[in-house]
Amino acid sequence: MVATNPPSGCRDFINDEARLRAELIQKISDTYISYGFRPIETPAFENLDVLLGSGGGDENEKLIFKVMKRGEKLKEAIAKGESEIADFGLRFDLTVPLSRVTANYRGEIQFPWKVFHIGPVWRAERAQKGRFREFIQCDVDIVGAKTWAAEVEVIQTVVQAIAALGQKGFELRINDRRLLKSVGDHLGLGESEFTAFAILLDKKDKIEPADLLAEMKVLLGSKMKPLVEDILNEKFSLQQFESLDAVVTSEMRKLIQTLKDLELPLSDIVFDPSLVRGLGYYTGPVFELRHASAGYSFGGGGRYDKLIGRFSKEPIPACGFSIGFERLFLLFKEQKNQSLSQQEKRLFVPVFSEDLRSSVLKIANEVRGQGFEVDVYPDDAKIRNQLRFASERKYRWVLILGEDELQSKQAKLKDMEAGSEKAISLDRLAGALSENLS
Amino acid sequence: MVATNPPSGCRDFINDEARLRAELIQKISDTYISYGFRPIETPAFENLDVLLGSGGGDENEKLIFKVMKRGEKLKEAIAKGESEIADFGLRFDLTVPLSRVTANYRGEIQFPWKVFHIGPVWRAERAQKGRFREFIQCDVDIVGAKTWAAEVEVIQTVVQAIAALGQKGFELRINDRRLLKSVGDHLGLGESEFTAFAILLDKKDKIEPADLLAEMKVLLGSKMKPLVEDILNEKFSLQQFESLDAVVTSEMRKLIQTLKDLELPLSDIVFDPSLVRGLGYYTGPVFELRHASAGYSFGGGGRYDKLIGRFSKEPIPACGFSIGFERLFLLFKEQKNQSLSQQEKRLFVPVFSEDLRSSVLKIANEVRGQGFEVDVYPDDAKIRNQLRFASERKYRWVLILGEDELQSKQAKLKDMEAGSEKAISLDRLAGALSENLS
Repeated sequence: MVATNPPSGCRDFINDEARLRAELIQKISDTYISYGFRPIETPAFENLDVLLGSGGGDENEKLIFKVMKRGEKLKEAIAKGESEIADFGLRFDLTVPLSRVTANYRGEIQFPWKVFHIGPVWRAERAQKGRFREFIQCDVDIVGAKTWAAEVEVIQTVVQAIAALGQKGFELRINDRRLLKSVGDHLGLGESEFTAFAILLDKKDKIEPADLLAEMKVLLGSKMKPLVEDILNEKFSLQQFESLDAVVTSEMRKLIQTLKDLELPLSDIVFDPSLVRGLGYYTGPVFELRHASAGYSFGGGGRYDKLIGRFSKEPIPACGFSIGFERLFLLFKEQKNQSLSQQEKRLFVPVFSEDLRSSVLKIANEVRGQGFEVDVYPDDAKIRNQLRFASERKYRWVLILGEDELQSKQAKLKDMEAGSEKAISLDRLAGALSENLS
Repeated sequence: MVATNPPSGCRDFINDEARLRAELIQKISDTYISYGFRPIETPAFENLDVLLGSGGGDENEKLIFKVMKRGEKLKEAIAKGESEIADFGLRFDLTVPLSRVTANYRGEIQFPWKVFHIGPVWRAERAQKGRFREFIQCDVDIVGAKTWAAEVEVIQTVVQAIAALGQKGFELRINDRRLLKSVGDHLGLGESEFTAFAILLDKKDKIEPADLLAEMKVLLGSKMKPLVEDILNEKFSLQQFESLDAVVTSEMRKLIQTLKDLELPLSDIVFDPSLVRGLGYYTGPVFELRHASAGYSFGGGGRYDKLIGRFSKEPIPACGFSIGFERLFLLFKEQKNQSLSQQEKRLFVPVFSEDLRSSVLKIANEVRGQGFEVDVYPDDAKIRNQLRFASERKYRWVLILGEDELQSKQAKLKDMEAGSEKAISLDRLAGALSENLS
């Protein structure tokens, strides 16, 4: 018999979990739309050369799931060698496809382009706890806007999307890749030294402070300066960076002040000069969302003014913010939140005999038209089994439409929690349900 | 420079098209939920042996996009030969994953299980007009119900989902694989003869009637009987099948009568003994939706009582119905429908100077909270350019919040269609917008 588990590192979702995920995604999408963003849809796989060398981080490229060529072409490819066997790759993020799409449809796009993209991405990670090979990202991006106004827009949109889910206690951390670079210049670091410095800094939340400081002293040697200690000890102010880059520091100040003025539902907005956000395609501000309950980020983003230039004659500035959906979903699961939707708008209708099925279904259809969710038992079964089904699926409300009820035009509405029942007239069923279900 | 087109046979969607697709999917999902179906989510790829030999139709299996093994395992696999190189395959339908999931989580499922599954599937078809390698299916299934009540449920749910999109003129065609088999028995066909007969019958809508009859006569030879001519000439009644299989004929009659009683938004419900629906996993009733505007079906389904048995010790009966989303989308495009949502709930807000941005954004956020979609220009730009952006994105309503308006607490609401404008108080902005936007 064939094994029935999903592929290693991938997951199936059924029942309440699947429903909650669909509801969360719908709500995030609704918020993105209410902020004037428009959806895009791109294929699951891309031509391999779109994914390779995209600056999406070399780490990501190693993790591409590759799709084999087919038919005669496959045979030829195998003869030529490993690097020839695949022609497509599953996307490892949504930013590279967006960049390709921007270049491909420039003429049909009104810039600045406010877009969002929600969908799965795939990375061939070694399967381990909390690391998945298929996971959903929820990106907003603004393409073709140069100023920090775009950063404000993507940040507030993501923050409001998460707030609309009822989640609180998120903190926003901000830095700017140009400030990070100016720190490197201040220390007199060459390119490879700077990379090593940034990689170590990026580990700040994973290593003990004393250990990190010690490692940093070893790495930098005589180039170590007080500013680095201040950053590691979190004893710095934005002002200290003024002398390194006055323009960027002033932009950062404006961005943070505007975000504070907006009174967004955040516990804090923090300038964090140790924030690196990988070594990928970012060129300006970078930011991420943290939550007191977890050591990892719930989303991140930044400005990537050069990525689209890989696909287009002229570069186009862009910035984006992505919700890490799987971590957000985990937060809901930990809180045992099963659904965002209203339990009281749902009811169950048993079918007392198959002769009555079409009459019952017709009534159910009318009620659905009034915004109720109506579940009818979909098989010929004893009424006892039907009611057990309703109870297992946690229906509070059951509408009884037996032969007597249909003839007298009086349904019975059972409240399974209270154990009570009430007669309601079929002539004004939807209205009566609205009044009674709460 | 890297080529920016999507992979051959795949598509990108942006702007109105992407929005319409998202709206259609949301509406279909909403209808499915209102009929008591619950979502499931499965990975894009499956372990290859789940897809191979699944009875999903040999044709489908040939079309699997295969995912290469990785790292050391890949090198070993290449040495062993072509059939070892891949370990996963992209799903070619949603029924095989549902069957696997049912077997894997039997203990957590309440049967009969009413589920829906909306998502892309992939087939390595040769790219040609109207044939895509990535396309979306919208399936409803009932697992664990034996009787035709389940067929009624999936059929009415799909029909209502399409009707909720405002599409009319669909006709439902029904047959039963057991009736088809009984016709074969009536003709005295062996297994391979029956397969050839069914394949030819399946071409009924693609071949001229006279040609089909001629081909059928050649195929059947001395086994040709009047019933076949009646089927091909569409001059038959359900009664003629009574003598072939009284039980199935009676079930078919009941199913059709119940569907007619429901007064579903269909132009017709037709028993069609020539309906084959492939040679795959169906074991009982099969059905499909046609539309006067097109020669192909907009969805199909049927009962597959044996498929889950491949993954599970005991077989579990099941039936399902799938909307062919891409054809439905095509129908909307032909009708030039751009959106299902209300244009009047959208407005655009320009930013007159960056100093005003946070004040403007705060007001926009309040309005969004009242169910409006508010688009704010996300960059530092001349007001002329901002208004051109609004006009290109077809915003009818523009809310002016300049320095004067913010100070006097009186916004200006411009109707770009009528060319008129109106002052509205910021103190009751959302209320005033609700009254004015229509």
